[in-house]
Amino acid sequence: MKMWRILVIVAVASAACARVDTKAPATLVISGGTIVTEDASGRIIENGAVAINNDTIVAIDTAAAIAAKYDAREVIDARGQIVMPGLINTHGHAPMVLYRGLGSDLALMDWLTKYIFPAEAKTVSPEFVRVGTKLAALEMIESGTTTFTDMYYFEDDIAAATKESGLRAVLGESVIKFPVADAKTPEEGLARAEKFIQAWKNDALITPAVAPHAPYTLEPETLKAVRALANKYDVPMLIHLAETQDEMKQIADRFHLSPTMYLESLGVWTGRSLGAHAVWVNDEDMATLTKRGVGLAHNPESNMKLASGVAPVQKWIDHGIHAGLGTDGAASNNDLDMFEAIRQAAFLHKLSSNDPRAMPASLAIELATRRGAEALGMGNKIGSLEVGKQADVITISLGSARQTPLYEPLGQIAFVTHGDDVRNTIVAGRVLMKDRRVLTLNSADVIRDARAMADKVRAAIK
Amino acid sequence: MKMWRILVIVAVASAACARVDTKAPATLVISGGTIVTEDASGRIIENGAVAINNDTIVAIDTAAAIAAKYDAREVIDARGQIVMPGLINTHGHAPMVLYRGLGSDLALMDWLTKYIFPAEAKTVSPEFVRVGTKLAALEMIESGTTTFTDMYYFEDDIAAATKESGLRAVLGESVIKFPVADAKTPEEGLARAEKFIQAWKNDALITPAVAPHAPYTLEPETLKAVRALANKYDVPMLIHLAETQDEMKQIADRFHLSPTMYLESLGVWTGRSLGAHAVWVNDEDMATLTKRGVGLAHNPESNMKLASGVAPVQKWIDHGIHAGLGTDGAASNNDLDMFEAIRQAAFLHKLSSNDPRAMPASLAIELATRRGAEALGMGNKIGSLEVGKQADVITISLGSARQTPLYEPLGQIAFVTHGDDVRNTIVAGRVLMKDRRVLTLNSADVIRDARAMADKVRAAIK
Repeated sequence: MKMWRILVIVAVASAACARVDTKAPATLVISGGTIVTEDASGRIIENGAVAINNDTIVAIDTAAAIAAKYDAREVIDARGQIVMPGLINTHGHAPMVLYRGLGSDLALMDWLTKYIFPAEAKTVSPEFVRVGTKLAALEMIESGTTTFTDMYYFEDDIAAATKESGLRAVLGESVIKFPVADAKTPEEGLARAEKFIQAWKNDALITPAVAPHAPYTLEPETLKAVRALANKYDVPMLIHLAETQDEMKQIADRFHLSPTMYLESLGVWTGRSLGAHAVWVNDEDMATLTKRGVGLAHNPESNMKLASGVAPVQKWIDHGIHAGLGTDGAASNNDLDMFEAIRQAAFLHKLSSNDPRAMPASLAIELATRRGAEALGMGNKIGSLEVGKQADVITISLGSARQTPLYEPLGQIAFVTHGDDVRNTIVAGRVLMKDRRVLTLNSADVIRDARAMADKVRAAIK
Repeated sequence: MKMWRILVIVAVASAACARVDTKAPATLVISGGTIVTEDASGRIIENGAVAINNDTIVAIDTAAAIAAKYDAREVIDARGQIVMPGLINTHGHAPMVLYRGLGSDLALMDWLTKYIFPAEAKTVSPEFVRVGTKLAALEMIESGTTTFTDMYYFEDDIAAATKESGLRAVLGESVIKFPVADAKTPEEGLARAEKFIQAWKNDALITPAVAPHAPYTLEPETLKAVRALANKYDVPMLIHLAETQDEMKQIADRFHLSPTMYLESLGVWTGRSLGAHAVWVNDEDMATLTKRGVGLAHNPESNMKLASGVAPVQKWIDHGIHAGLGTDGAASNNDLDMFEAIRQAAFLHKLSSNDPRAMPASLAIELATRRGAEALGMGNKIGSLEVGKQADVITISLGSARQTPLYEPLGQIAFVTHGDDVRNTIVAGRVLMKDRRVLTLNSADVIRDARAMADKVRAAIK
């Protein structure tokens, strides 16, 4: 009798253990949506789920299969939503959201000399970039960006504000030949960049970088020194490249080369590099950028608004260049909504190539996800929903009139979705926005501080 | 003593009467925002207010002045918001929202023959256009459009659904040489158009019209008959005009004229007319359109997505043509958000003219308001906030991170604002949306019916 009782207890206990043992732990499961993985095969799973443990994606399957296999600590209900990788913004100047809308519809030099330069001279400070970065981070979290790229000043403060927001970022401390807010000389800029890199080199979410402004705003020796610094720490170098015809002329007049080939002649491409814009590149330039593994950031909104030209993005890709997408700073755009950049890329290249099949939705979305990750040299970590990658995920509501009906998710993402449709934003498994409520920043405080800073900007340009 | 008492009572009563008498009645006051009037002088009033009585604007002034002068039955608090005229969409096909996203990134004829024509052949019905129009109306109300223009089938049912939504519209019953859902022949279409015009001729919000599809889809005799019908009732004629190079070739091959001059040769422009697209017009065409007072609708998103070309909008205006803005149908766009059309117009013309000063925010907004009203021949009724005009008003929230900071309202409207930012939508003094809640349509029912109809569309193209 006793023996029988013990046997029963053991059997029950084993069954319970077996049930527990077969369910693996997941800190977060996003369940029930249309999963747009952006993996190499373009897999889309209806009524799917993504299981996340800590910062990593551990499984992607049907919602039923994930529910059977994973014991979720937290579940986000994504039924009726699209679930996709967080968007990657490969070029911008985050704190410049504080100059959003400052001077519109002007010739570039008028805009810079009457508005941006005077405002920057009088307002850029560690406090300014912290306030601006938080405002930018709030807007990015609310519109589904999970990784952004930055080129600005006081990058150490930008990193601190970014850290607080929970976003992932590649942050480049600027080096430029003119005196700027955080450095009187390019040498001072280089020294500041090195300290910044040392301070943030081992951060899980922040990739420090050095950002020489452009080929025409630095002397050859500084450009070489920047490359040496980036290679010393194996960090990316971010640079504006071949953006305008004026830049082409300046470099041609002085060096009789294209900006791309001029930098090649200096050895500037011999390491991790990202060029922004690359509107004016020819086949020789593109072959060189391909050979050197340089990533390029396409900024369709900025290029249109400033009338810079049309970057030959399909040619970049045909050459084998890693192409990403960016908003540029909100001063020249005027927002950080990557869904707008996706749509703009598709519209622009269809028109400019006179072919409605050009830049299909699928490719425009890849620029903002998988290809953008590759452009930043982070293709193994982010850019798609795949097991083993970082859990950078967003969900998109399909409940509004504008989002009705849904025939095909990629077209809906590219041609219908606004950043406002994003419901949840997750970076490295951490929920930064849940059901439109940002959890890492206090929205009211961020907006109040930004408005106070805008008063200083108004005073500065009076 | 008694006399003294009576005198006091009379004095008090007179004072009360005087106070009441000096306050004029207003059924609705929108109070406290930045009023962007879009009047001819471009007046903008900070902390202003708009007083409305029944369907008409009776005063525009500072909030304090309006409060002192008007006794408001209802007040909308617009503090921290922009208040502007409702947007005017001068070209579209409302029920086609039900085909939104059906086939993307295809050559035009592939898209039409594989998706749109088969879907239309099997699904267009009175019920279809009612369901589709309600979905479109919901999206338009939610994104700040107060007047829209339509060219489709079963326009009588479209008018009924529009009436229910409370929107203002110019609705054109289609005439085309092929058999379509509501007419086997163009003669049948003409007869249907005439009945439709008779039925809606005296409606306060619906302007009935006749919509010959395009120069290349109708025979000369039908085009002449359409003009005669429009003139018989003094209603507008809406037509696709010079949209693609293929159209140019078809008309040139057959008539050795441009589409514009071909229609001129038939006398088609001798009455109220609106041409949509007009991408391919030369100086002779534009001089003719100016002479005839033809309005034109620019559709930048559709023209880019379908790679039709860049309409010379600044030249239209320089010639003196009344230019409006449109989204085109959501099947080729893919939404009805006029703020997107505004931004797209600005971006497109800056790029195509290689000049960032081209198509400034102010002009792009005028296309969607005052100039659009003129293009529809309704410039005396709508398109600006002016005393005596119809009270078609929207308010835009500036509270989000994306809308922070605000330096200049026109740039903010053109380059930052999404339809999602609209808080209140008012047509002819009636509040159609209050604080994002649509009052005239049941959103859940409209979306449910649209999804059910989309199932039929899916079945039709299988």
